[in-house]
Amino acid sequence: MAPQHQTSQKTYHTEATGTAALTALNHKNECDLKLFGSCFCPFVQRVWIALELKGIPYQYIEIDPYKKPQSLLEVNPRGLVPALRHGDWGCYESTVLMEYLEDLNAGTPLMPKDDAKLRAQSRLWADHINRHIVPNFYRVLQEQDQQQQISKAQELREGFTKLIDAAHPQGPFFLGPRISFVDIQVAPWILRLRRVLKPYRGWPDPEEGSRWATWVNAIESNEHVRTTTSTDELYLDSYERYAQNRPNTSQVANAINSGRGLP
Amino acid sequence: MAPQHQTSQKTYHTEATGTAALTALNHKNECDLKLFGSCFCPFVQRVWIALELKGIPYQYIEIDPYKKPQSLLEVNPRGLVPALRHGDWGCYESTVLMEYLEDLNAGTPLMPKDDAKLRAQSRLWADHINRHIVPNFYRVLQEQDQQQQISKAQELREGFTKLIDAAHPQGPFFLGPRISFVDIQVAPWILRLRRVLKPYRGWPDPEEGSRWATWVNAIESNEHVRTTTSTDELYLDSYERYAQNRPNTSQVANAINSGRGLP
Repeated sequence: MAPQHQTSQKTYHTEATGTAALTALNHKNECDLKLFGSCFCPFVQRVWIALELKGIPYQYIEIDPYKKPQSLLEVNPRGLVPALRHGDWGCYESTVLMEYLEDLNAGTPLMPKDDAKLRAQSRLWADHINRHIVPNFYRVLQEQDQQQQISKAQELREGFTKLIDAAHPQGPFFLGPRISFVDIQVAPWILRLRRVLKPYRGWPDPEEGSRWATWVNAIESNEHVRTTTSTDELYLDSYERYAQNRPNTSQVANAINSGRGLP
Repeated sequence: MAPQHQTSQKTYHTEATGTAALTALNHKNECDLKLFGSCFCPFVQRVWIALELKGIPYQYIEIDPYKKPQSLLEVNPRGLVPALRHGDWGCYESTVLMEYLEDLNAGTPLMPKDDAKLRAQSRLWADHINRHIVPNFYRVLQEQDQQQQISKAQELREGFTKLIDAAHPQGPFFLGPRISFVDIQVAPWILRLRRVLKPYRGWPDPEEGSRWATWVNAIESNEHVRTTTSTDELYLDSYERYAQNRPNTSQVANAINSGRGLP
């Protein structure tokens, strides 16, 4: 007999909800460009937002990350999402895929086309997000010791502070009035601060009137972010296994537990 | 009195030697585009090779990484090289800088200009190098326990094997006959296998006639790699502090010791 407490465990979702469910439905038809995604995965959401912003036709294929189909393994042998298939070619890694979509030269650019300096600035801070924000998000969420949670939350806060200091002074986005590469790279984790780190770790809301509050509001109300975002409950449920640091939660969780870089 | 064994310690070099010394000399004059580098640093060598391949005019400024000048700190507050200054703007992170040089649209391209798929492929494997080859190189070199050295060397070997499997079957380079983005990303560590990991950790030479041997030979004899490479002794001396895992060897060494990602 399974122990009593396990029966109340939440589990991850295998279908988007809310506005994201509608977007998935609108993109279920066969298309040359296919995004393999999982509804709660922030790395997937990056590519999903980019596709929506650019308005490139695509097919969304929902993957249960714990039951990887052959069609995904053909694109990425490690079975990680996001993965893209474009005709008979496939690729993976969210940052690489965002650059790929950019290189298709279709729809709204993610970086200013003719400004090498702003493009470098965008890539520099995307790299900061991948190395100093994303892993710290998981460290805070998976840490079970309260004292350690506080020191790890401090590191995550510093990661965000440096990013805010590098952003356009008024914004509301990183480079100014329009959403671009850096915003899309960080948006999924910004959304998960209120939806996941707040309930599980007491992460505070942004201070009213601050540059940070302006940015968070701009992200939350951006139409392409909204169309790829599920209801709050989906995230709360899907991340409980991380917050309890259950064994074999994911390749990301395992990498964080072993003190290595993300897979 | 200092302990006897310390007097025989090798130390890092602060000036390039051999062909790299000549290249540094040829690029000592004031120029709008400045590369702040250290002669033994592999991250610097990436950007240096790219500049040489492209033939873009630049000034090389040698930095002692343990005595960071204000001019470098103005570009990168953390004082890490490589850093570029271009007019009144500056940036850092070797991969970001290679993309920046590419975006200047001057000289030989590092990635095929109009092939989004090959560009994505290049970025995917550059990411693999940064996450699965570079940190493992330092783990093998800094590890003091012999058993652990063997298992870490195995991980490094696997990192290279995956990269070779993804490369063009004949090569000699990653995408075929010409050196490009991925080759330049990995070249500095390939050079340091024979010059550093072989003497300090017994790293084996490539098997004659193998795809790996073909690649290593192509890298070693490429003119832009050669013009940025110092004599063997410079690397042997400069990496002894890593091989002995001396305290405060570098920010890279500290990150590896603490089990975190590279700085």
